[in-house]
Amino acid sequence: MAERLKPEDRAAGLKALTDWHLCEGREAISKSFRFRDFRQAFGFMTEVALVAEKMNHHPEWFNVYRSVDITLATHDVGGLSALDLELAAEIDRVANRS
Amino acid sequence: MAERLKPEDRAAGLKALTDWHLCEGREAISKSFRFRDFRQAFGFMTEVALVAEKMNHHPEWFNVYRSVDITLATHDVGGLSALDLELAAEIDRVANRS
Repeated sequence: MAERLKPEDRAAGLKALTDWHLCEGREAISKSFRFRDFRQAFGFMTEVALVAEKMNHHPEWFNVYRSVDITLATHDVGGLSALDLELAAEIDRVANRS
Repeated sequence: MAERLKPEDRAAGLKALTDWHLCEGREAISKSFRFRDFRQAFGFMTEVALVAEKMNHHPEWFNVYRSVDITLATHDVGGLSALDLELAAEIDRVANRS
């Protein structure tokens, strides 16, 4: 069962990630990605979908053409858990290979 | 080259589609889909992505777990074109098979 992160763990976790930021008015983190075209953007999304399904932890995301905006939070804890930091790091690994 | 639909063609096209509606404050159409789980939702998105790439006409879409909200418009014409009606009909065909 996921647990809500303590503020100091949240801050430390966020510091270890690149370009993820806390959302305004909501305990969640988000990042925007931009790719060459739709094909590359959706290829990225497909790879993230497989990772997310395996973790059983899913993103909220918005895609238009070559842009993908991702928000992560853990519904069960009403905020951020270690799962979000883990998924964010996995997403960055996928993006860095795209 | 896509052309902006005349109001009467837009109305007739929309009438021929199921549950698609005009967005407020913007010449675009949208529809929300709900699936069994993320796997089914993303399977649907993958199929739509292939259709969209082939048409070279792409959706704006938001997914969280088993929900997918789709908005269609034609950027080049600053509103709706026949491409949007065509893609909407294709999306419904995919959804009806999911």
